[in-house]
Amino acid sequence: MKARVVVTLKNGVLDPQGKAIEGALASLGVAGVTGVRQGKVFDITLSGTDADAARETLKAACDKLLANTVIENYAIETSA
Amino acid sequence: MKARVVVTLKNGVLDPQGKAIEGALASLGVAGVTGVRQGKVFDITLSGTDADAARETLKAACDKLLANTVIENYAIETSA
Repeated sequence: MKARVVVTLKNGVLDPQGKAIEGALASLGVAGVTGVRQGKVFDITLSGTDADAARETLKAACDKLLANTVIENYAIETSA
Repeated sequence: MKARVVVTLKNGVLDPQGKAIEGALASLGVAGVTGVRQGKVFDITLSGTDADAARETLKAACDKLLANTVIENYAIETSA
């Protein structure tokens, strides 16, 4: 079973990396971009086939390692 | 207009960071994870409202800055 976990900064948390990208895009002549926030994505393969069990495993993975839940949100999408 | 760009490594490109995460999850007692590949996500705000123009802008942004197209794929999702 495959899953994708997307980890993004919570609203209100400053994102200097995103600001730098925004500035770089303007310098490169890419117009019309008014905001950039960067996050992380994890494409995860799991051994089981049960979607609920997979979701529990991924929730544990996010809470323990993949996301800093003080400043980051995470979203889990599973697919067959 | 808002958009999300997801940049992932192409198949066949080694991902030591993903491997490290896989090992760390096993050490932390999260069982059942057989593969991890890490990518980047960019949540981008654009000034225009035309979806086609936004897609062109984002394509330019990806080719010029956000993705290394030699080893990375990118996917663009736009939303209103």
